[in-house]
Amino acid sequence: MKTYQEMSKEELMQEKTALEQEYAKIVEKGLALDMSRGKPSAEQLDLSMPMMDVLTSESILKSENGTDLRNYGVLDGIPEAKALVAEMIGCKAENVMIYGNSSLNIMYDQVARAMYDGVCGCEPWSKQGTVKFLCPVPGYDRHFAITEHFGIEMIPVDLLEDGPDMDVVEKYVNNDASVKGIWCVPKYANPSGVVYSDEVVRRFAGLKPAAKDFRIFWDNAYAIHHLYEDDQAEILDILSECEKAGNPDMVFEFCSTSKVTFPGSGIAALATSPSNIADIKSQLTIQTIGYDKINQLRHVLYFKNMEGVKEHMMKQAAAIRPKFAMLDELFTREIAPRGIGNWINPKGGYFISFTALEGCAREIVQKCKEAGVVMTGAGAPFPYGKDPKDAVIRIAPTYPSLEELAQAAEVFVTVVKLVSVAKVLESK
Amino acid sequence: MKTYQEMSKEELMQEKTALEQEYAKIVEKGLALDMSRGKPSAEQLDLSMPMMDVLTSESILKSENGTDLRNYGVLDGIPEAKALVAEMIGCKAENVMIYGNSSLNIMYDQVARAMYDGVCGCEPWSKQGTVKFLCPVPGYDRHFAITEHFGIEMIPVDLLEDGPDMDVVEKYVNNDASVKGIWCVPKYANPSGVVYSDEVVRRFAGLKPAAKDFRIFWDNAYAIHHLYEDDQAEILDILSECEKAGNPDMVFEFCSTSKVTFPGSGIAALATSPSNIADIKSQLTIQTIGYDKINQLRHVLYFKNMEGVKEHMMKQAAAIRPKFAMLDELFTREIAPRGIGNWINPKGGYFISFTALEGCAREIVQKCKEAGVVMTGAGAPFPYGKDPKDAVIRIAPTYPSLEELAQAAEVFVTVVKLVSVAKVLESK
Repeated sequence: MKTYQEMSKEELMQEKTALEQEYAKIVEKGLALDMSRGKPSAEQLDLSMPMMDVLTSESILKSENGTDLRNYGVLDGIPEAKALVAEMIGCKAENVMIYGNSSLNIMYDQVARAMYDGVCGCEPWSKQGTVKFLCPVPGYDRHFAITEHFGIEMIPVDLLEDGPDMDVVEKYVNNDASVKGIWCVPKYANPSGVVYSDEVVRRFAGLKPAAKDFRIFWDNAYAIHHLYEDDQAEILDILSECEKAGNPDMVFEFCSTSKVTFPGSGIAALATSPSNIADIKSQLTIQTIGYDKINQLRHVLYFKNMEGVKEHMMKQAAAIRPKFAMLDELFTREIAPRGIGNWINPKGGYFISFTALEGCAREIVQKCKEAGVVMTGAGAPFPYGKDPKDAVIRIAPTYPSLEELAQAAEVFVTVVKLVSVAKVLESK
Repeated sequence: MKTYQEMSKEELMQEKTALEQEYAKIVEKGLALDMSRGKPSAEQLDLSMPMMDVLTSESILKSENGTDLRNYGVLDGIPEAKALVAEMIGCKAENVMIYGNSSLNIMYDQVARAMYDGVCGCEPWSKQGTVKFLCPVPGYDRHFAITEHFGIEMIPVDLLEDGPDMDVVEKYVNNDASVKGIWCVPKYANPSGVVYSDEVVRRFAGLKPAAKDFRIFWDNAYAIHHLYEDDQAEILDILSECEKAGNPDMVFEFCSTSKVTFPGSGIAALATSPSNIADIKSQLTIQTIGYDKINQLRHVLYFKNMEGVKEHMMKQAAAIRPKFAMLDELFTREIAPRGIGNWINPKGGYFISFTALEGCAREIVQKCKEAGVVMTGAGAPFPYGKDPKDAVIRIAPTYPSLEELAQAAEVFVTVVKLVSVAKVLESK
């Protein structure tokens, strides 16, 4: 098969006419499909329903240390939940604080505290003039929304195949004291699926920040969200690496069980150094008395141990693996030979990042919408929603059923072809 | 019986010697008791244990509007929880937002948002120079800790028998644009037990604030926490009253089920006007995707309706009523005839506020501590921990067993006598 670039003007015209007819037929169907939402499917949620049976009116709701978990207290989480979460993300239990139901809320509050109270005794960021964050792209729009909300200037940094472009990261962090943070999703990144290599993690740990209050915002959201049993990515523990490198306080690591048990009804955690924990608690004790310890216990009793977590996550993987496989197969068949897009087939996480021909993403998303298929907004994975190449589209395959996803993907592929053929024609 | 004031110097000396001996004996016992914590007892927590059976793996975790509550979404709470909470605090369901597990956290975040994002389009408080809050005293130390944390200047206002001294409140609010808020616990106030009269609520609603971004922080923490079945305080709905008075946006009302079901594992809510809700959501959507909807459903299904709530609260009342009664009886017998203290015997809530002779509170708390009885720190119910008369002591009777409480109360009474006799002697 010829790629669109290799086709003659006439061939392209012909292809365009055929695609326009195909597209018109799709529009007539009046579909209502959605590939925009990074949410588990009902089938995945069903997997966690036995958690509802773990606690009954006969249960002793006490922590292993004897604390009555039904009452006030315990600001930083129960020890057994700390231990389990530490295993999930591969750090030490003494680094972990368990919060409420949302890691996003922890991240927001971490930025808010840094802005207005300051980090470990430093002047609050809000009083230091311009404050900047590095934003590996493509990245997670809700991260960027937080920094934008606080008026923090966002600098895009390319996300390469093994992590952010560390030459650029080092240049900024080690020389510019107004650079106070970087958003990272180190494993099965949202949306690219990229996994940070050991070298990248070590280069992070070895940073020599110009700002004493620089922190890495390490959103380990997909730490255990593997798609395969026998091909799983592992990343180094950034906290130990930073400790070894003499930068023990440089990281705030986040995680949650939102995509493990129930989004909104899971538990979320922060992992960081003891000095950071002490700094956080000095403010947190004003903000709340503590989080939902019964739900912490419910999670611990449900999983029992890390083996239980792994087993559960393999059931999750089994539910979504066919969806990723179907898309990869479809794109390999329909997109690759025409030379009109690239994607990474990830080994875990929740997304496929699709890179269209330059200047096509916005129109693809728009035309999908007109055909009844909702995609994540083009530009969303970039600070301020601005994709300089207008090329990246985030695909979220988990939520729809396999059948709906297949339908939506067919539409998507037709639209990609249609928009691409027009784009290539323009240049002929 | 003569009061201490009526006794001669000799009589007082004799009384003092006897009390010193009594105190020494108590110290020898090496007690370890606590009347400082506004926490439910284990017996009270047991009452809510059936809530653990409400949801099972067979349950359909859907809202009445069809939303799957196991997944992401629903920023402001499920409709059935809004309806129930509205009944609990006596407002309209459309005024209610359901949050996570802590009303304190909502209050903190409300102040934080006002400080840094501003209220409904007004300049953020942090950019308006000095910002002041009125603080009816005695009040709740965790309220004052929030305003102190944000550098807000706190102005004490006397809490009278039917609410704050409204002449003073009106003078400040209507004339000083730097007064941005007031902390209120309108029903069974912490710690005084005071209930705001209809006239006071109406005067609140009729305020003409100099500051457009002035808000009443109305912590309706004890809305349904009656001690008696047949003698229950009711207060006017501040939200409707404000609406009627042309001040629809003037109130943030807070509540939670922390002392209804499980502290830390309950649900918390904010009630306010639609414009305030819109303003809040514009920021909240950056901070979180939503709160624990499964726990919201659990609460609704457990109580079924307002009748269920009332029934439950009467069981709670039965568990703690004897404790309040015992203290009232003891103080009536031992304190009143000696003229060495006043207290309000509340009809609900969690506290008894004890007013000692001026200049005695700190020493009473200290001497109790030395005898093994922990009381809330003297001064705690005042901004900056400063009780100008050094007279108020907050007593929290709910947490200890009746037996422990009786022991602790005996110690307290002996110490009050001892410290008071010395104080009266000084003045002879």
